[in-house]
Amino acid sequence: MTEPTQTSHKHAQTTPPRPAVNPLLVEVTRGSMVENRHRAAVAVVDVEGRVVLSAGDVEALVYPRSAIKPLQALGLVESGAAEAFGCDDKEIALACASHNGEAAQAEAVAAWLERIGCTEGDLECGPQLPTHQASLEELLRAGGGASALRNNCSGKHVGFLTLAKHLKVPTKGYILWEHPVQQTLLGILEMMCGLDLRAAPRGIDGCGIPQIGIPLGNLALAMARFADPADQPERRQVACARIAKAMTAEPYMVAGTGRMCTRVLAATGGRALVKTGAEGVYCAALPELGLGLALKVDDGATRASEFLLAQLLQRLDQLDSAAAAELKQDIAPVLHNRVGLEVGQIQRGADWSF
Amino acid sequence: MTEPTQTSHKHAQTTPPRPAVNPLLVEVTRGSMVENRHRAAVAVVDVEGRVVLSAGDVEALVYPRSAIKPLQALGLVESGAAEAFGCDDKEIALACASHNGEAAQAEAVAAWLERIGCTEGDLECGPQLPTHQASLEELLRAGGGASALRNNCSGKHVGFLTLAKHLKVPTKGYILWEHPVQQTLLGILEMMCGLDLRAAPRGIDGCGIPQIGIPLGNLALAMARFADPADQPERRQVACARIAKAMTAEPYMVAGTGRMCTRVLAATGGRALVKTGAEGVYCAALPELGLGLALKVDDGATRASEFLLAQLLQRLDQLDSAAAAELKQDIAPVLHNRVGLEVGQIQRGADWSF
Repeated sequence: MTEPTQTSHKHAQTTPPRPAVNPLLVEVTRGSMVENRHRAAVAVVDVEGRVVLSAGDVEALVYPRSAIKPLQALGLVESGAAEAFGCDDKEIALACASHNGEAAQAEAVAAWLERIGCTEGDLECGPQLPTHQASLEELLRAGGGASALRNNCSGKHVGFLTLAKHLKVPTKGYILWEHPVQQTLLGILEMMCGLDLRAAPRGIDGCGIPQIGIPLGNLALAMARFADPADQPERRQVACARIAKAMTAEPYMVAGTGRMCTRVLAATGGRALVKTGAEGVYCAALPELGLGLALKVDDGATRASEFLLAQLLQRLDQLDSAAAAELKQDIAPVLHNRVGLEVGQIQRGADWSF
Repeated sequence: MTEPTQTSHKHAQTTPPRPAVNPLLVEVTRGSMVENRHRAAVAVVDVEGRVVLSAGDVEALVYPRSAIKPLQALGLVESGAAEAFGCDDKEIALACASHNGEAAQAEAVAAWLERIGCTEGDLECGPQLPTHQASLEELLRAGGGASALRNNCSGKHVGFLTLAKHLKVPTKGYILWEHPVQQTLLGILEMMCGLDLRAAPRGIDGCGIPQIGIPLGNLALAMARFADPADQPERRQVACARIAKAMTAEPYMVAGTGRMCTRVLAATGGRALVKTGAEGVYCAALPELGLGLALKVDDGATRASEFLLAQLLQRLDQLDSAAAAELKQDIAPVLHNRVGLEVGQIQRGADWSF
């Protein structure tokens, strides 16, 4: 793990040489053979930066994508914006969400926008159709179409608009690197990851905001600090607890019907604060253990990142028997074909060593 | 490559030891760094089984999925079923298709079904919504829903029904291993691949038919024999030519609007007879060169299999300047986000060696 350089005086544990190839952690079978193989890196660290569990190259840079939305929501909460605009649990959960674009989610975003004096036209995330199949069909059958409200990131974006309003800066261009909103989030991310990120590799996310390349181990460190913010400034401690409470109280708003984030948040009752990201990223804050988890599948497959998260939550004893029963399909996924037959499963890969 | 054992007296070229890890052939960038990495194996062989070009473990078993539909269509054509039931180019192309479920495709399947005395209820592929977004929206807005006609495999399935009718066997259960239709296709596949496949690993495809694990190199051999069937029985030679003609004449029916198979078939005018399969498989028969190509992406990503196919067609000089211009987005894919910004590209991976 890259040693924290900026905001922490604690030293990261010395790690072994970086592996040339990430381990084969996930396999997908069909009938009597393995059809697909996914390689990945995993980092589980504590607030001191100690690596508790790892696989693969935890120093490799990854784009966290949507998996750090709970960290980005810190900007909304610790600035006082959430309180000033009266945000409730649902709204704070939506700020952390990659939601399905279901009607109830889009409506909640619309109501929040109106309350801060904005409209859908102020959202800069671009239009999207619901990712939830039944909601998509319902919308299209009713003559609707893609919109910014239905964009899976719309909750995060109205959170950004709320922060801009609170900072009394123009909302236009709030997705740009130079905008005070993004610079505020950069500062938070640097403190949480323990890194100077100003010169880190950058890209643009699906919804238009900057993405920053961060070593996987430092991403896990940020989640550990979110899980156990005792060493953070007091307003951040309060904000971490406020966001954890909202995600736990409103799991549906964080993702939606049929989604793993929602299932895990509901089943664990806040023991595992999990958030998925595009291209095979998953992050989790584990408050009871004071640990952070970050994983990235080399090829970006969601089926592999979800399977790994479920396996790791079990490995870390974060699923009691009731939670394990509710997450049965996540822990031991069975694949079906179009006629409903069981055709395969997702299982631990040949290099699994936990 | 596994040596042909059953139907060929020709010996496969001796190959080097099987690599433990397939090479990194495809990378996906975002901004200034690589975000995703795809490993794959590639085999290009001639009708003698000589490996002309390869990467990775070409002896590893893969499920060909839909990439062998042109080989499966041999059963329809060489049995005399296609002629007896008056199948035209569109229908033979549909038998080779993983189509979009567009209206024109579903209508053509329905007309063919009616002509052979069957109905949609005889299709055993299961229901599916169109994979083509505009067609999906059109269907749902008109109050329609998933159906077997819209299943991407429906053309292949009506081809199977046509063969069953011609063989004068019950159509029910035509997707089962034991059914005369599937046993006919098994025999064809064994001859084309040069392997006894009766004891090969098996699974069930998305549409319910058997899938057979085949070494990648032998899959490429089968495509080489399809490309240059001079050593095959005469009725198979005629059938290969008939199918090649249909795929070339009706590229839209093989896939559909916006699809790579359709673009390549149209742009190359039959120089490259290409067919995609689920989970990162692509096959091609190259008649001018007398070569067959098969590739499989370890993790099953279509973006990687499509990129590799385009690169290999260029490498094998199968794209003239006009074709290369038409396939520009396939050869050098640029990725855009929801607001239309260029955010990354797909490029050759670190282990590219062709």
